[in-house]
Amino acid sequence: MTLLLATPTMNPAAWLRAFERLTPELDVRAWPDCGDPTDIRFIVAWETPPGFFSEFPRLACIASLGAGVDHLLGDPDLPRGVFVTRVIDPSITQQMSEYVILHVLRFSRHSQSFDQDTVEEIWRPRIPLQASDLTVGIMGLGQLGLDAAHKLMQLGFPVIGWRRTHKDVAGITTYVGAEALPDFLAECRVLICMLPLTPATQGLLDAETFRLLPRDAYVINVARGAHLVESDLMAALDRGHLAGACLDVFETEPLPAGHPLWHHPKVTITPHIASLTNPTDVVPQMAENYQRVMAGERPHHLVDIERGY
Amino acid sequence: MTLLLATPTMNPAAWLRAFERLTPELDVRAWPDCGDPTDIRFIVAWETPPGFFSEFPRLACIASLGAGVDHLLGDPDLPRGVFVTRVIDPSITQQMSEYVILHVLRFSRHSQSFDQDTVEEIWRPRIPLQASDLTVGIMGLGQLGLDAAHKLMQLGFPVIGWRRTHKDVAGITTYVGAEALPDFLAECRVLICMLPLTPATQGLLDAETFRLLPRDAYVINVARGAHLVESDLMAALDRGHLAGACLDVFETEPLPAGHPLWHHPKVTITPHIASLTNPTDVVPQMAENYQRVMAGERPHHLVDIERGY
Repeated sequence: MTLLLATPTMNPAAWLRAFERLTPELDVRAWPDCGDPTDIRFIVAWETPPGFFSEFPRLACIASLGAGVDHLLGDPDLPRGVFVTRVIDPSITQQMSEYVILHVLRFSRHSQSFDQDTVEEIWRPRIPLQASDLTVGIMGLGQLGLDAAHKLMQLGFPVIGWRRTHKDVAGITTYVGAEALPDFLAECRVLICMLPLTPATQGLLDAETFRLLPRDAYVINVARGAHLVESDLMAALDRGHLAGACLDVFETEPLPAGHPLWHHPKVTITPHIASLTNPTDVVPQMAENYQRVMAGERPHHLVDIERGY
Repeated sequence: MTLLLATPTMNPAAWLRAFERLTPELDVRAWPDCGDPTDIRFIVAWETPPGFFSEFPRLACIASLGAGVDHLLGDPDLPRGVFVTRVIDPSITQQMSEYVILHVLRFSRHSQSFDQDTVEEIWRPRIPLQASDLTVGIMGLGQLGLDAAHKLMQLGFPVIGWRRTHKDVAGITTYVGAEALPDFLAECRVLICMLPLTPATQGLLDAETFRLLPRDAYVINVARGAHLVESDLMAALDRGHLAGACLDVFETEPLPAGHPLWHHPKVTITPHIASLTNPTDVVPQMAENYQRVMAGERPHHLVDIERGY
């Protein structure tokens, strides 16, 4: 009974070390050194190619290395009858909220303008945008979205939310479904995309969405590059409708050299670091899920394949 | 009975407008158009020159335009027996906490490094410093320091405090007095100066203080330029002991063109904007204090001249 780390786009060394340190009794292998494929019952996966899992006839569970599972559900050959799990971890939530707060405050406090003034040795006070005037709209009120919402409210920002399906969310005015999207967008001075990537949310940040935002709105995308139509964003920035954007994720990652986003004066770029999974933090939940699945139980943090997250 | 706005370094137009709008019945004048000096009973002051107040024989109260009163108490000819007040306002507190959180997160999340990578089109993920590992030490636990402390704790940062005199502060490990300063500094990965400027705190951020901070500490000064010995800070940065600094206040303001701080790669500069007094927010408390003083009562937010704040 063996656990396989399958992370073709990423060096698995830190994960191997964490499993060895925290669960020395487990037989853990790292792709491409899979050994006999019939040994493999549990795969911890990140960005595996389509069809990857069909080689493992006795596979019982696929665990996404991160909070997102779009990299798995996009595989048309994903085996049926196999559990798919994702990571839910306080550290991931904490990091995401920090990132969102940092970039909302960078916007409201004119941080980039002051940095530019510093380069030019210009002393030019600018009055901050008042938090109480700056409604932040969060698309996606799951674990991550809710934590960010509550922390932004504690800092004095009015927060509203949008979700695809109805669920009561205490203390946050929530708009539900496609019909409510225009009303939601009209209220957002800052729009933050924290949605899971599914066929229903792909490309949602497009020209029409930007048109429905108020003038001088600011857009933050910490979800997936495929949520955003990058050319539509640049057009909305260039015609002066949006004040700026902060992007952690991109249609192509790493963002290619020479891509116009790199040097767009209104865009802040970070290299997909809003929230990084720390092996030491999440290996215990993966090891527990491995034991549960081997004992015939359902794992924690199970993904609803139909819903897509 | 007249109120005088005396702000020689600042255009008083916004203040005049706010008084006219909110208290149209009040006779408000703006320096240098003081009229008969014996009319003046109440002066709203900012950075008046030494001896300024001795021209007004019937003066009853001097109201600082901001939270700090060092610009008043430094005047050796400040009249005796005249009330001195300062501004305490939720908006000032809110802005200061926003600023502090923004710059703590900019440090912990490597924001400046990502900005630099963007200029060079380099995709280079960096693991954030974990909030739980980053003890933030706040010097000065008054109205402003306490609010920042609580909000940083809500975001997951361990917070400790230092104050000159003893006072119980719920939930925050507090070091008191000069003897405890070395122990306090040894714990601070981020040091934030939010002290009032008094003879006892002037120059407190000096070579000895920086030596007592752990290696790679980050320093934020949002109090007064005179708290910091700028040349000592630059020396501590240049020998690699400190990771960086964020300064909103300076020995000379505006920071002169050509000053080495403008282009120090480890220093973030902002033009004294961490917290700006909004006339509309604080004119009501000034008008109320004016009425109280005219009625023979003590004004709110009275300054203890001996203590210095």
